[in-house]
Amino acid sequence: MSKSEKINYTNPSGFTEFLPGEKRLESYLMDTIRKVYESYGFTPIETPAVERLEVLQAKGNQGDNIIYGISPILPPNKQAEKEQSGKDKSDDNNSEARALKFDQTVPLAAYIARNLNNLTFPFARYQMDVVFRGERAKDGRFRQFRQCDIDVIARRELSLLYDAQMPAIISEIFEAVNIGDFLIRINNRKVLTGFFQSVGVTEDQIKTCVGIVDNLEKIGEVKVKNELEKQGISSEQTEKIIEFINIKGSVDEVLDKLRHLAENISEAEQFKLGVDELETVISGVRNLGVADNRYCIDLSIARGLDYYTGTVYETTLLGHEALGSICSGGRYEELVGTFLGEKMPGVGISIGLTRLMSRLLKADILKSLSATPAQVMVVNLQEDLMPLYLKVSQQLRQAGINVITSFDKRGLGKQFQSADKQGIQFCVIIGADEAAVEKSNLKDLKSGEQIEVSLDKLAEEIQRRLV
Amino acid sequence: MSKSEKINYTNPSGFTEFLPGEKRLESYLMDTIRKVYESYGFTPIETPAVERLEVLQAKGNQGDNIIYGISPILPPNKQAEKEQSGKDKSDDNNSEARALKFDQTVPLAAYIARNLNNLTFPFARYQMDVVFRGERAKDGRFRQFRQCDIDVIARRELSLLYDAQMPAIISEIFEAVNIGDFLIRINNRKVLTGFFQSVGVTEDQIKTCVGIVDNLEKIGEVKVKNELEKQGISSEQTEKIIEFINIKGSVDEVLDKLRHLAENISEAEQFKLGVDELETVISGVRNLGVADNRYCIDLSIARGLDYYTGTVYETTLLGHEALGSICSGGRYEELVGTFLGEKMPGVGISIGLTRLMSRLLKADILKSLSATPAQVMVVNLQEDLMPLYLKVSQQLRQAGINVITSFDKRGLGKQFQSADKQGIQFCVIIGADEAAVEKSNLKDLKSGEQIEVSLDKLAEEIQRRLV
Repeated sequence: MSKSEKINYTNPSGFTEFLPGEKRLESYLMDTIRKVYESYGFTPIETPAVERLEVLQAKGNQGDNIIYGISPILPPNKQAEKEQSGKDKSDDNNSEARALKFDQTVPLAAYIARNLNNLTFPFARYQMDVVFRGERAKDGRFRQFRQCDIDVIARRELSLLYDAQMPAIISEIFEAVNIGDFLIRINNRKVLTGFFQSVGVTEDQIKTCVGIVDNLEKIGEVKVKNELEKQGISSEQTEKIIEFINIKGSVDEVLDKLRHLAENISEAEQFKLGVDELETVISGVRNLGVADNRYCIDLSIARGLDYYTGTVYETTLLGHEALGSICSGGRYEELVGTFLGEKMPGVGISIGLTRLMSRLLKADILKSLSATPAQVMVVNLQEDLMPLYLKVSQQLRQAGINVITSFDKRGLGKQFQSADKQGIQFCVIIGADEAAVEKSNLKDLKSGEQIEVSLDKLAEEIQRRLV
Repeated sequence: MSKSEKINYTNPSGFTEFLPGEKRLESYLMDTIRKVYESYGFTPIETPAVERLEVLQAKGNQGDNIIYGISPILPPNKQAEKEQSGKDKSDDNNSEARALKFDQTVPLAAYIARNLNNLTFPFARYQMDVVFRGERAKDGRFRQFRQCDIDVIARRELSLLYDAQMPAIISEIFEAVNIGDFLIRINNRKVLTGFFQSVGVTEDQIKTCVGIVDNLEKIGEVKVKNELEKQGISSEQTEKIIEFINIKGSVDEVLDKLRHLAENISEAEQFKLGVDELETVISGVRNLGVADNRYCIDLSIARGLDYYTGTVYETTLLGHEALGSICSGGRYEELVGTFLGEKMPGVGISIGLTRLMSRLLKADILKSLSATPAQVMVVNLQEDLMPLYLKVSQQLRQAGINVITSFDKRGLGKQFQSADKQGIQFCVIIGADEAAVEKSNLKDLKSGEQIEVSLDKLAEEIQRRLV
């Protein structure tokens, strides 16, 4: 067999893959996230990777994203046929432009429109598919990546207690995966825009101001000031804004200050509404038992995206602030009803798993798992005992243990080496003497310890040691 | 908000999606398959959806499949920019043609080539990604579908006991998902081609003959005869072939007949090799404890694909033969070493999950699961008790129960209805009286039964009833 030397088999730029130990870590994270999502009754959906281009571009939904169109490529033999007959026999012609989804939100809107009468509202779904974006393939950016999203969507009103569940969910997930201390920062867009209104920022300036303030952490207070003044905000207004977004303290202290402000500012309707919402959400978070040190009110966060209208969340990994938000989201009104022309309020969060994982691995906050799910290798000491090795392997599997039976004809040393390289902790060694008395030697490759265990106790002994 | 009337938000043809209860069934099937795969030490990998076109077309690997090329579509604002500056700022230009993968085998070959030095051989991996094919979107055909594959790949020799593990794995999976009786049919391509050689079929006719015989079940014996004779096979040879593929009986009886044949035919080298392999595999399957009624030797199966060189498998759901094989595979020599120019023997099986599931659903062999993973709804009887409802919900979740807290302001009847519609079995009802004495009413929506349970025993009581 000759090597196909001319074929470049490397990954296309931005489309990478994990080694087995990394993929196993991703599976573990997905399992953990999914378990928490499901414990709150979120149900899984998966939309196809491919949507009609007009769906992805509806109402400018494509945003700034470069998306990938798809078009069929016939195999060489059919290509020739087609050219001869002038007809495309595949029926997969290009008359309808199609492209790969770049997020889960536009497809969610389409899914709801397509399946409206088969869904129960409020519709709480999770989705962990991969999405595609033609981004510059620079550090930490991928062109295919997985997002783990939840959203609850209502047809009319959606209780603010759904907003309160989000920090509880974020908190459970990041406690379960054990990546250190984190802080969920909560705000409400109405509080922010209401405050801007009250200090006299004009309607058309508000969006820009929200965006500037949102960058506080990135660019610092001085630059925020400058940027605001550049937008024609007076220095008096700027002072008030800076003072406002610097309000700090426990959630109760911040809420107290906000209530006090609400009574002392003019045109406070929107502001008051926001404060009420924030208060309801915080009270729900508390009733859900989220630990006090896991969340705070941060009046500077706004989430860049236009569509958020109420509660917004960001999550910071303490001591690793440079990683940015590890889980964000918020409430929106006019996002998923697009295709139906209905207002459908929703609230959701998203974990950008691929990017998060690759950054946590780089920062040594997470480590790859072992290269195989196998916990035990039954080694091949004597070929004639293979029937017994197979039987013992099956017994262990039936007890829920993952087992590789070695069919390796080389010596035990090589087999131990292979087990160790893959991160398998235990080897089961059975020679003719042990077989005769239904015993085995159990070797722990981590400690080097080796003990004799009777075959009928083997599964139990391994399980005890695996804990 | 006005309806975007012109947007066609339906699924593009062939790219469909499941309703939540169906998606939950798929998740359950994937979890089951994965658990069995992992119990044999197969490790997960996931290759990107996108590969270089030259990789997918290497050595004609595209086969008859219509694949999808991808190309970036800039957002409208950047499109304008690009046209002005004449430069593509995305760096995602089209100089390297890329396309969506159409199977898991070509990407596996590329993955092995890319990560050769980071893998341990024999490399046993599973992969459950979706793949894309521009097939005619007729009954049961999808353009995006999931395949659940395992393969073990060696760098030199690969023990036939890996072949023996495959029927054990197939058997465990289909027993676990409880879809009725099935039969794994095992054959060896060398037995078949060796027999053809021995009756004097010429080398260049063998491939065609194997293909014809493989269709026995579909077209029947008479047509197989006719087809063989059309290929220039003499009627004497045809008789022998028909007699041969009709050899039936227990695996021991068939093996006996094959051994007897091996001693009585000419040019039997390849045939004998095949019989030896088949014998080793069958003996391994037996030692792995696969029940006798789950597998047989079927000398007529060959698997259409050219690349199989030894053991081949098909799995039939008894009583539903029209569904075709529900799990197939085999051994190959020159498949995954392509990019390295190495011979890498491998053996693998594939479950075409999307297609299989949609057919089993249609045939009522499988049923959708409930629309939500939630097992319990804590209903909203009195808004002022919400803090208690949230607390009780969290207690149940901590006990591993999936819970929806209802924030519905409508009456209990509507809330029960919503729970029932989603397939939630239990409702927890707490009024002021119950709250005062730390009790709750647990209503089973299936039986209609309602009992009083103290709050500290609630999780336990629900778990007992969920089993």
